[in-house]
Amino acid sequence: MLHIEFLTDLGARVTVDVDSADKLLDVQRQYGRLGWTSGEVPTGGYQFPLDNEPDFDWTLIGARKWISPDGEELVIHKGHAYRRRELEAVDSRKMKLPAAVKYSRGAKSTDPDHLREKSDGEFEYVTLAIFRGGKRQDRYALPGGGGRAAQPQPSQPQAARPAPTRPAPSAPAARPAPQAVEEETPF
Amino acid sequence: MLHIEFLTDLGARVTVDVDSADKLLDVQRQYGRLGWTSGEVPTGGYQFPLDNEPDFDWTLIGARKWISPDGEELVIHKGHAYRRRELEAVDSRKMKLPAAVKYSRGAKSTDPDHLREKSDGEFEYVTLAIFRGGKRQDRYALPGGGGRAAQPQPSQPQAARPAPTRPAPSAPAARPAPQAVEEETPF
Amino acid sequence: MLHIEFLTDLGARVTVDVDSADKLLDVQRQYGRLGWTSGEVPTGGYQFPLDNEPDFDWTLIGARKWISPDGEELVIHKGHAYRRRELEAVDSRKMKLPAAVKYSRGAKSTDPDHLREKSDGEFEYVTLAIFRGGKRQDRYALPGGGGRAAQPQPSQPQAARPAPTRPAPSAPAARPAPQAVEEETPF
Amino acid sequence: MLHIEFLTDLGARVTVDVDSADKLLDVQRQYGRLGWTSGEVPTGGYQFPLDNEPDFDWTLIGARKWISPDGEELVIHKGHAYRRRELEAVDSRKMKLPAAVKYSRGAKSTDPDHLREKSDGEFEYVTLAIFRGGKRQDRYALPGGGGRAAQPQPSQPQAARPAPTRPAPSAPAARPAPQAVEEETPF
Amino acid sequence: MLHIEFLTDLGARVTVDVDSADKLLDVQRQYGRLGWTSGEVPTGGYQFPLDNEPDFDWTLIGARKWISPDGEELVIHKGHAYRRRELEAVDSRKMKLPAAVKYSRGAKSTDPDHLREKSDGEFEYVTLAIFRGGKRQDRYALPGGGGRAAQPQPSQPQAARPAPTRPAPSAPAARPAPQAVEEETPF
Repeated sequence: MLHIEFLTDLGARVTVDVDSADKLLDVQRQYGRLGWTSGEVPTGGYQFPLDNEPDFDWTLIGARKWISPDGEELVIHKGHAYRRRELEAVDSRKMKLPAAVKYSRGAKSTDPDHLREKSDGEFEYVTLAIFRGGKRQDRYALPGGGGRAAQPQPSQPQAARPAPTRPAPSAPAARPAPQAVEEETPF
Repeated sequence: MLHIEFLTDLGARVTVDVDSADKLLDVQRQYGRLGWTSGEVPTGGYQFPLDNEPDFDWTLIGARKWISPDGEELVIHKGHAYRRRELEAVDSRKMKLPAAVKYSRGAKSTDPDHLREKSDGEFEYVTLAIFRGGKRQDRYALPGGGGRAAQPQPSQPQAARPAPTRPAPSAPAARPAPQAVEEETPF
Repeated sequence: MLHIEFLTDLGARVTVDVDSADKLLDVQRQYGRLGWTSGEVPTGGYQFPLDNEPDFDWTLIGARKWISPDGEELVIHKGHAYRRRELEAVDSRKMKLPAAVKYSRGAKSTDPDHLREKSDGEFEYVTLAIFRGGKRQDRYALPGGGGRAAQPQPSQPQAARPAPTRPAPSAPAARPAPQAVEEETPF
Repeated sequence: MLHIEFLTDLGARVTVDVDSADKLLDVQRQYGRLGWTSGEVPTGGYQFPLDNEPDFDWTLIGARKWISPDGEELVIHKGHAYRRRELEAVDSRKMKLPAAVKYSRGAKSTDPDHLREKSDGEFEYVTLAIFRGGKRQDRYALPGGGGRAAQPQPSQPQAARPAPTRPAPSAPAARPAPQAVEEETPF
Repeated sequence: MLHIEFLTDLGARVTVDVDSADKLLDVQRQYGRLGWTSGEVPTGGYQFPLDNEPDFDWTLIGARKWISPDGEELVIHKGHAYRRRELEAVDSRKMKLPAAVKYSRGAKSTDPDHLREKSDGEFEYVTLAIFRGGKRQDRYALPGGGGRAAQPQPSQPQAARPAPTRPAPSAPAARPAPQAVEEETPF
């Protein structure tokens, strides 16, 4: 028997019994659909193979896709909206990195230091996940094998959670919107 | 079977077994009435849909409404009193935010850094919950469907806990009372 | 079924199964008598109603009363000695506070920042518990209903733990002994 | 019965029941092969006897050997690549240390302070494991008794995880590659 | 039923079921012999009665005695070597302290702040245990009642763990060896 610890959408600490190891991902999908998460986002974000990006099942980490009123496709995780960015391969004398897709957001004043990553300039951001290199793992895919065809539902039943504060639509696509830093506390 | 971890009103760490996932919120209400909490207040406070604010069941997070001797309706959570504030919608060039209701208090010298949010000036505060946007979830409501009609009991049986140190009544309604910082240690 | 997590007198992490919620305080008393504690002392100390102070059952939080060689009644908790102080009611223009009884000690160099509270001057102290306001809860009382009559045993069988380093007897009664800061490491 | 807590390759907190203490290492091997880890890397890295180094079973700590495209043999642990270094014995007036083998990497900006160790100069690194002194323990060895003969598989079935960002191949073998610090965020 | 949480010699988090409270110390001895520990060393070190020092059973806290090649008797705990020191009683105007025996070591650069204690000068050390005052508890003693006669085995079967980095033999006996600070990273 296994036992998996979640933080529920209400922030409660709940452990769920699981009969066997091969049912674990099913249980993560089932509760992840409710916004439950297990463990912390690793420093620097989750790392997945690039080939898993098109049909990645975000419920595995308690996240979901969300289409903003402006039609932008974002990923929502614990009330934060993350924007998709494509990173080109780097092949310089100093470093060699394959192409990647990164989901990140601007840092907020209440984010802990170990999650803040520095970009050039003073801008800081937080990464949810990075898809780079590696070999596709089918077990991370949306069930039903949709690939790119599997579209996020604009209004899912479980999407009754409060709308996330979305990044300002005027932000340049190439990096997180600096304005996001001021999104939280206008009063 | 599920298991939910609480911090009791005496600060003890206690796990309660729960038969099935659909009984989880009932168990949270049952023990939340005693002031038991599960998990930490998320940084920036709990986020709920605005339409849940009028009849939100505060026992879900181990809190309760409390009417002060001056007749002000406060929310008590782990011995702290939080004041209700209505935040107007913001629609400027720099940011766009829907109206919200926020429950917050002035920061105390013993509050950890990651909970302190800065307002303008040097004043710092701590948020328990913010109700903004989203779609109402009936499962967060007081049982019995009272809505605004569901009034807090001025003297509940379980309210035998010590009276919280309430914010000074002379504080302006628009922000937490700065005096609260000095409420703790007069000797 | 419930499960309560303790830190034993040897510092081990031990969970004890409890049949039902109404037996929880009994289990806390049973193991608290051995110096086992559950959870952390809340920042600012435990808060209890003032009327619970005379016959409070300190085993509930793993503490015990101890009479020093000088005849002073102290409370011992995890090897630290806390001194009893009566705080008068405050009724000024800036704040209004009912009378209270506080158990506190001088801070030591190894105490973490979030536990250190500042007094006037440079002196810092740590609070174990504060009894103020509220309504008496009989479930916090010593079993047998002794009230003030229930005296601490000068030599309990379970008091075989090492004698706590007591505050210097020459310290003024009104505040924790500053000398306590230097009690730890004389070599 | 025993219960071992893991952090899965997806970062989830999962506990696995184990029938008896003598089966514990088998369970650690079984899940460690999937990249699951239990507990934190100790400050300063795991300590093992030097004679265990040639055929150490890295699955015990959720790690695996990996041969880089350049043919260098690295150890992968939670997405980080660690390089093998041989440390000569030290026998000076100030200190006496036996020879050792150390697996370490350059520190990244998101590594917490307590893991960063200073070398001479400003360079900081993080140690996964150090093999020094002691007496060989057979229970730490690869099953089947291969010793040096037990080679890492260049493409194991479970190696479908994303390729780790490897240290820059131009780095001198004697110390972790300082460039690694900039490997993370090229955009 | 009780459940005790250990950190194994491999750093894994493992919980062991215990039938009843009176068997708890036996289980701690059984696994402590393997170097498993439960909970953290308390800030300032474990506190035990002075009369328990001669025949204290170090397996209770996952430690063991070890005789260095120079014949010095040290206590090993989680790979660190602690040296025994006798502290004379203090009886000055400022403080009064009974005689004690302390096991401590010099602080290392990777030790967290709350464990570092300052001596006079800039030297910092970490305490494992202090034996002072109190009343002997037989349950802390080595089984078989050996007292001083119970000698550490120079080569126990379970002592196959790597030899701890021992304090430099040239250090004065009265305090931890400052050189220990540089013991860790010679490359």
